Amino acid sequence: MTDLHLPGAPHSALAITSYHAHVYWTSAAERERALHVRQWLADRFVVQLGTVHDRPVGPHSVAMYQVAFTPDALAHLLPWLMLNRLGLSVLVHPNTGRARDDHLVHALWLGAPLVLHADTLPNSLADGGGVSAVVPNTTPTSAA
Amino acid sequence: MTDLHLPGAPHSALAITSYHAHVYWTSAAERERALHVRQWLADRFVVQLGTVHDRPVGPHSVAMYQVAFTPDALAHLLPWLMLNRLGLSVLVHPNTGRARDDHLVHALWLGAPLVLHADTLPNSLADGGGVSAVVPNTTPTSAA
Repeated sequence: MTDLHLPGAPHSALAITSYHAHVYWTSAAERERALHVRQWLADRFVVQLGTVHDRPVGPHSVAMYQVAFTPDALAHLLPWLMLNRLGLSVLVHPNTGRARDDHLVHALWLGAPLVLHADTLPNSLADGGGVSAVVPNTTPTSAA
Repeated sequence: MTDLHLPGAPHSALAITSYHAHVYWTSAAERERALHVRQWLADRFVVQLGTVHDRPVGPHSVAMYQVAFTPDALAHLLPWLMLNRLGLSVLVHPNTGRARDDHLVHALWLGAPLVLHADTLPNSLADGGGVSAVVPNTTPTSAA
């Protein structure tokens, strides 16, 4: 990052309306682990589990599924993922309406970072960077 | 990761007693940004700001300072860091008593990951992987 001036005030995290975690795999063995993590998540967290994509979609360069969750879920979900991702690469990014920055600048990685084809994502609120609201589809039965 | 069997039960995040964030720099310009982030942190969060290390220490391969914080602080601090790290690489790792895994397996990265010389860190609770308790040294005056 070049020529970055020092801003006078930081951004408020209130700009974050939700988060997406993307759990990736690149082999049959990793896919099995990813589905194991998926079931663990379904049993423990109120989240929206997305389609299991065996081929790359959107900015993602390998197979993955998305886990959408509300800001208040981060406090429990992220520590759990740190300990239980089973060696898989996981991208966690906030949604602030600026999709490109959210994937490339604001994101965090658990495990090895992977290539993201996110340069063409919209980056202004006016571009309709809007992300669908989280609609949980899990019914947890276990404590995290 | 090879030959990973699928565990029957996930780890509880209750094993996490604290977190460390490490903010890195590799140039004078990055150092200025790192100190800017440091002041922002001091003004907004109850954390323990560590020494500004201009030379690599411990497992760290470049200059950095540490920010220690309690588990309950993650929910506000991490989203804020996602939006306000000013392009710097930041490692956030939990402390579970297994220092090697905490740095190499359980950690997350904001920005570009850097080399960590963590292979020789102790990894069993019996090795005294214990980490000092967080002793906050900031007095926030601003809302995050």
